[in-house]
Amino acid sequence: MVGHAFMGAAHSQAWRVAPRFFDLPARPVMAVLCGRDPDRTRAAAERLGWAESVTDWKSVLDRDDVHVVDICTPGDTHAEIAVAALDAGKHVLCEKPMANSVAEAVAMAEAADRAARRGVRAMVGFSYRRVPALGLARDLVARGRLGRIHHVRAQYLQDWIVDPAAPLSWRLDKEKAGSGALGDIGAHIVDATQFILGDTISEVMGTLVTFVPERPLASAHSGLSGTAATGRTGPVTVDDAALFLARFTGGVLGSFEATRFANGRKNALRIEVNGSAGSLAFDFEDMNVLQFFDGTEDSAVAGFRRIVVTEPAHPYVGAWWPAGHGLGYEHAFTHQAVDFVRAVAEGTDPAPSFADGLQVQRVLAAVEDSAASRTWQQV
Amino acid sequence: MVGHAFMGAAHSQAWRVAPRFFDLPARPVMAVLCGRDPDRTRAAAERLGWAESVTDWKSVLDRDDVHVVDICTPGDTHAEIAVAALDAGKHVLCEKPMANSVAEAVAMAEAADRAARRGVRAMVGFSYRRVPALGLARDLVARGRLGRIHHVRAQYLQDWIVDPAAPLSWRLDKEKAGSGALGDIGAHIVDATQFILGDTISEVMGTLVTFVPERPLASAHSGLSGTAATGRTGPVTVDDAALFLARFTGGVLGSFEATRFANGRKNALRIEVNGSAGSLAFDFEDMNVLQFFDGTEDSAVAGFRRIVVTEPAHPYVGAWWPAGHGLGYEHAFTHQAVDFVRAVAEGTDPAPSFADGLQVQRVLAAVEDSAASRTWQQV
Amino acid sequence: MVGHAFMGAAHSQAWRVAPRFFDLPARPVMAVLCGRDPDRTRAAAERLGWAESVTDWKSVLDRDDVHVVDICTPGDTHAEIAVAALDAGKHVLCEKPMANSVAEAVAMAEAADRAARRGVRAMVGFSYRRVPALGLARDLVARGRLGRIHHVRAQYLQDWIVDPAAPLSWRLDKEKAGSGALGDIGAHIVDATQFILGDTISEVMGTLVTFVPERPLASAHSGLSGTAATGRTGPVTVDDAALFLARFTGGVLGSFEATRFANGRKNALRIEVNGSAGSLAFDFEDMNVLQFFDGTEDSAVAGFRRIVVTEPAHPYVGAWWPAGHGLGYEHAFTHQAVDFVRAVAEGTDPAPSFADGLQVQRVLAAVEDSAASRTWQQV
Amino acid sequence: MVGHAFMGAAHSQAWRVAPRFFDLPARPVMAVLCGRDPDRTRAAAERLGWAESVTDWKSVLDRDDVHVVDICTPGDTHAEIAVAALDAGKHVLCEKPMANSVAEAVAMAEAADRAARRGVRAMVGFSYRRVPALGLARDLVARGRLGRIHHVRAQYLQDWIVDPAAPLSWRLDKEKAGSGALGDIGAHIVDATQFILGDTISEVMGTLVTFVPERPLASAHSGLSGTAATGRTGPVTVDDAALFLARFTGGVLGSFEATRFANGRKNALRIEVNGSAGSLAFDFEDMNVLQFFDGTEDSAVAGFRRIVVTEPAHPYVGAWWPAGHGLGYEHAFTHQAVDFVRAVAEGTDPAPSFADGLQVQRVLAAVEDSAASRTWQQV
Repeated sequence: MVGHAFMGAAHSQAWRVAPRFFDLPARPVMAVLCGRDPDRTRAAAERLGWAESVTDWKSVLDRDDVHVVDICTPGDTHAEIAVAALDAGKHVLCEKPMANSVAEAVAMAEAADRAARRGVRAMVGFSYRRVPALGLARDLVARGRLGRIHHVRAQYLQDWIVDPAAPLSWRLDKEKAGSGALGDIGAHIVDATQFILGDTISEVMGTLVTFVPERPLASAHSGLSGTAATGRTGPVTVDDAALFLARFTGGVLGSFEATRFANGRKNALRIEVNGSAGSLAFDFEDMNVLQFFDGTEDSAVAGFRRIVVTEPAHPYVGAWWPAGHGLGYEHAFTHQAVDFVRAVAEGTDPAPSFADGLQVQRVLAAVEDSAASRTWQQV
Repeated sequence: MVGHAFMGAAHSQAWRVAPRFFDLPARPVMAVLCGRDPDRTRAAAERLGWAESVTDWKSVLDRDDVHVVDICTPGDTHAEIAVAALDAGKHVLCEKPMANSVAEAVAMAEAADRAARRGVRAMVGFSYRRVPALGLARDLVARGRLGRIHHVRAQYLQDWIVDPAAPLSWRLDKEKAGSGALGDIGAHIVDATQFILGDTISEVMGTLVTFVPERPLASAHSGLSGTAATGRTGPVTVDDAALFLARFTGGVLGSFEATRFANGRKNALRIEVNGSAGSLAFDFEDMNVLQFFDGTEDSAVAGFRRIVVTEPAHPYVGAWWPAGHGLGYEHAFTHQAVDFVRAVAEGTDPAPSFADGLQVQRVLAAVEDSAASRTWQQV
Repeated sequence: MVGHAFMGAAHSQAWRVAPRFFDLPARPVMAVLCGRDPDRTRAAAERLGWAESVTDWKSVLDRDDVHVVDICTPGDTHAEIAVAALDAGKHVLCEKPMANSVAEAVAMAEAADRAARRGVRAMVGFSYRRVPALGLARDLVARGRLGRIHHVRAQYLQDWIVDPAAPLSWRLDKEKAGSGALGDIGAHIVDATQFILGDTISEVMGTLVTFVPERPLASAHSGLSGTAATGRTGPVTVDDAALFLARFTGGVLGSFEATRFANGRKNALRIEVNGSAGSLAFDFEDMNVLQFFDGTEDSAVAGFRRIVVTEPAHPYVGAWWPAGHGLGYEHAFTHQAVDFVRAVAEGTDPAPSFADGLQVQRVLAAVEDSAASRTWQQV
Repeated sequence: MVGHAFMGAAHSQAWRVAPRFFDLPARPVMAVLCGRDPDRTRAAAERLGWAESVTDWKSVLDRDDVHVVDICTPGDTHAEIAVAALDAGKHVLCEKPMANSVAEAVAMAEAADRAARRGVRAMVGFSYRRVPALGLARDLVARGRLGRIHHVRAQYLQDWIVDPAAPLSWRLDKEKAGSGALGDIGAHIVDATQFILGDTISEVMGTLVTFVPERPLASAHSGLSGTAATGRTGPVTVDDAALFLARFTGGVLGSFEATRFANGRKNALRIEVNGSAGSLAFDFEDMNVLQFFDGTEDSAVAGFRRIVVTEPAHPYVGAWWPAGHGLGYEHAFTHQAVDFVRAVAEGTDPAPSFADGLQVQRVLAAVEDSAASRTWQQV
């Protein structure tokens, strides 16, 4: 695994826990953790449970005991690592957004194609697909329970930089992060809605805003939470919020909003879908619940049902606890690991593929183009 | 109409509005308002829209132009007025609780029986029955959608005297009010649950508590909101909270709580019913909604449905606005007036009858007996 | 009053009830109802409580006993009636949307200006401003409790024509209605958000969609609910849904959606506002509640508060019931009548003025232009 | 660890995960799993990650490499194992309810006292105390944010045997389980409310009900989910539901309900607390949320706040994910393991102690006595 911050911890927990609850065709071994700083990487490996630590990710590509490379680094490094790993015959699980540009994503998708011909697999880490409630949402749409879909509205609302005194971090630096709210959280709702609908966005019209263009520089080595003030400020080079309207290939009308300035909303990934036969609503702040309106029912008893998605009949849930005993954020990563291991072992293509990741990248790029040109853009 | 405070205003609005939205077999005329103080009664009649005002309620019993007596006074006067009015051939609508004692309620039920033989009708004002969501609840139970009922839990939570500095009012005086939370709001949940279940409470085990036994005396003539301090205090002679367990004739197990000390709950009348085939939940703080769980559905899509009870198919609703346009507190009084006028005009017995009111009174008395004896009491 | 359908009933209830709960400087007299069909107008006058009925609205403009003209007709007639009434010296309350075109709205605003110089008042009926929770929302923004505003997102979701078999009605006819969801319900969220923020929309980018372009023709004389099938269909000439992004003069970023195809949402007018110091959320399906997040609080106890807007301290509420006893849809019309009567009696300008109505009309027109040109449009 | 069913899996996950997210003074080693059936125990050890498996729990008491015994078996075996383990100098973590009788619990508490003198620790597994929202609830009460407490109402609602065809299991057998809903889930709300209030129940009045007295016998070796029908039925010897009123030592009035017949409620552990200065509400179906009403605020902005208990400032949360990324059911077991390991390593008494467990047992026994005698019982 490359990277050991927030995503590194989530992925480590997934590898650790997956075989304890799911029957896997292969047992993951947490072999080696890669990072830049040797001391910090060694400490992280110890804490997270990796057998070994190294500082040069290239060194693991030759090792026969490494079959999978799990990429949890900032987006600017994804393409280089993923292409090299795939070309070295390693299966790759890559965090989202897949890349910082369409060009990088194209290279990655091509590498994945090459690799697939040799039985080597690649997957992008859009973890929210693996939240059981969203899996159920997709099932209901696929089974026609919503009829013809008219609307989808999706919001990903956070507030962690609403304070203008929050310091610059790599996530606010276009070089490292590619974009701001758009790529970090907007990418999730693009993938999640396309996944649920089984359809793709074909056209967008959007706008990007940076509410706070200058922020305090944190001292060196301090991360997201680093608050050691330096007295100096630096420019925010990414968007604080991204809004766009979208049309899907099948005619669905979409409204999207990703922001880090929705005060009081900590991680509110919300999706609503309206169809001719019914509707769905989801909010990650109540992640074990899917709301479903069955429009074919007698109006006297119709209403949005609060389905507590903890039944054995629900996706992934049977492996865990009895009904009513909810799951948490990191369970989606465990499910992702399960699906990835199964696909690799069974020799099937995992989803979302690098081609899917590339398509999301094209949507994000179209939003940026649209914001610049002030017109609709084809994806 | 006798009385012109909170309930007087609600009843006046009902008489005023009912014929504008509902087809009634007779048009109510708001003839005469009775009160104790001539000036204040005259002003109230003017404001509330009554043609005339008097201070002696007995004077209206001889009048040929008065067909209905609507009693909105404190509970200690209900029996005398109701019995006299019924015996004088006037139809009577009497606010709840019907009386301050079982003995009074027996006399009233007997008067109602006598009157019924002459075609004169009597009804008790348990207005919450007329909230559309609770009408729908009763319908669902009656249609068997819940199967065999196991549990009912009912709470009526308010907080208007949680502040120990809130003054004594007639509602805290056993002579005037009969009891405290028990008769004022506990009576509502007794009636409402019996109405929904179509069953009666046969046995109770309860306790009564007075958290604040002394309160400031308000100056003369000041009402509930009177805060002119006198420096003196007086004893609270009623319960601040009443809790009881109950068994219904049909075997249902009930849990009841009525309190004026639930900080932050302003008028939270909540009822949940659990049956072998489904469940219901209601909270008056969201009065246009009934939650319904259909336990016969596939567990993958089962969940409590938030039925917005504003469809034409719902009780009373068709007379008002399009779907989704909610009703308010006083609409239940309008529905009550409609049902009363229809029963009177059609010569049928309105419900809840005085016999129903007597039965509720017996439940309240059994709770008081149980609290005193610390044992279960038959109703 | 001109018109006696849905809005006519709501306005009649307002005139009837307002003086019973509010101290008004003048008592409204419900003098004469105007409609097209003499029999139906007479019956409506009887039912709604108007003393007289006529079929020629012009006939009332000469009458000395008529001081106010209340316009509840379809939008294509607003301009003619309002201008004539104002020029005849009658105060005018006009339902929204104020007109079917900017040109008409300009003429109306000019007539209102002329009239104002003679002490004659004009107001547009954006009733949702008078919902207490939205009044409280405006107060909190005005008092700075939200700090600098970053985002507003507003949706008005209905579903009454999601069934393709729902018949054509005047609301689906561009000639009568001007536009579809945009003018009918989109206008409400434009006004409501501008009211809450105390700011105006300066630029929009939008799209309009008609999901079902042909619908069954209802037989003549049947209204919205008319279902007498004729076997023929006709074109829907208005939008089923309108989505747009907006920038406010003060820099706020807005997302708007109005649709009649949100299955299961009956009248979900939802508004969220995010500022640097806090946030608000409202949903008309829970109309007595405003959610408020105070971002200045200790994070350990911060959270969206469910304010039950039924306290005496809240706008309009003190005139009604004790805390916790919710209001309904039509109360906003009563509050509107109160504010209008007070403004007329006190000789002040009521809000929203015809100038405000014109500004909303300009926003709607800019959305239509933007949908046609596929670019941002200035208002 | 003894036992490897539902609780065994939850405890295994706790031991596995705790050191990965929390700084622990000692690293737990998952040494040996005990079960009755050798093959099934071996398979469970493999799956759950225990190094070894044995079938005789006594065999581990002599081993120097075993320092902690974690008891996850049915209640009838707790006393014997716990006493023996403590007397052998092993620290003990024992699942709830601590025992099947007061006598057993007394013996266990005495053993814990003896052990404590030698530095050996004992703790009962009331895991819900470790849900962050309930930890926050206790903090708010302790800091006086609720003022004087008047009411607590607690419900633990499940529905897993509402179907009369659900088979007999050990949880429905008084010999194995001690009691039904009372001990299984009622014990949790007794502990949780006492924990939050920092007070103990002194007196109870309760009733127990068995709605379905006969159930199908499952075939041998089938567990809870075993549905192999045998055609025969057997008696349910425990309660399906337990309701009781309670008084706390400090005067708080409590209402408790534990049931397995609340159709549609899967694991709804709900607690409300009302005090003179504020209120709290919690529902495990939304486990990352605590609702808090601050009654000292201006009534215009007061309301129940939905605190999303995922902030670094909240109990246990800082070790996990960024704000808004919720935890799940099993995290409480991880927190329990953390607290236990820290207490053992630091030589302090863990809470809840066996004395606390005994006190809960006395409350449960008093409820049973009260149900039999139909009167209030002292604890």
